[in-house]
Amino acid sequence: MSDNARETGTDLDLKLNDQGLIPAILQDHETGEVLMMAWMNRDALDRTIESKKATFYSRSRDKTWVKGESSGHIQEIVEVRIDCDQDTVLLRCKSHGPACHVGYHTCFYRTVQADGLSIVEKPVFDPDAVYKK
Amino acid sequence: MSDNARETGTDLDLKLNDQGLIPAILQDHETGEVLMMAWMNRDALDRTIESKKATFYSRSRDKTWVKGESSGHIQEIVEVRIDCDQDTVLLRCKSHGPACHVGYHTCFYRTVQADGLSIVEKPVFDPDAVYKK
Repeated sequence: MSDNARETGTDLDLKLNDQGLIPAILQDHETGEVLMMAWMNRDALDRTIESKKATFYSRSRDKTWVKGESSGHIQEIVEVRIDCDQDTVLLRCKSHGPACHVGYHTCFYRTVQADGLSIVEKPVFDPDAVYKK
Repeated sequence: MSDNARETGTDLDLKLNDQGLIPAILQDHETGEVLMMAWMNRDALDRTIESKKATFYSRSRDKTWVKGESSGHIQEIVEVRIDCDQDTVLLRCKSHGPACHVGYHTCFYRTVQADGLSIVEKPVFDPDAVYKK
């Protein structure tokens, strides 16, 4: 497919990286909050569309995983979008619980300044209790 | 730095990929709209924080570039956030024009279904006129 067809057409032609993966951004469709970024392979994308549950590919565990399978914090898909280059996916979801494994609603709970980070969100759950560490 | 310190602390300790890069999500801070995803190296992040203009690293051109330098559609930084793993950056910006080079406000202007893509946004400018092709 030509670059122009990929960027402006209506055929899916994923531009996967050399590991066969594509970054996927998870966004709460009601609040607009960006919750996390994770990676997908083609199988994870197909499962996400079919099951309507955000499903990613873990590079460290070399397997697909359903977000919330341990915590119960499922991210229900409302809409899947793709960018012009077809090298990034945006998952707009109805959130059934916090996304961040360290206890915040969003993984992006800190701001970056020249001299370090600031925590700007409040924790919403205790990871040790949820993940039974 | 330990994983725990990186995930919960307030020191910047970027987890760059093997090319020295980190994905950066650009979000309109007023509407919550996710506009694009691009890559940064450490220099691009430092320039973004200092100049308050979204600045990325182009893998194809092997150089940093300021978003909007050709189009005039500068993305003014309101806040830079980082995720728990410190391997993804979120740029919350005041948008001075559309982000997508094919003519839409957001690069994520198409939805993905099992049978293909649908265009769900309206074009807002003519790329040929803006980029003087």
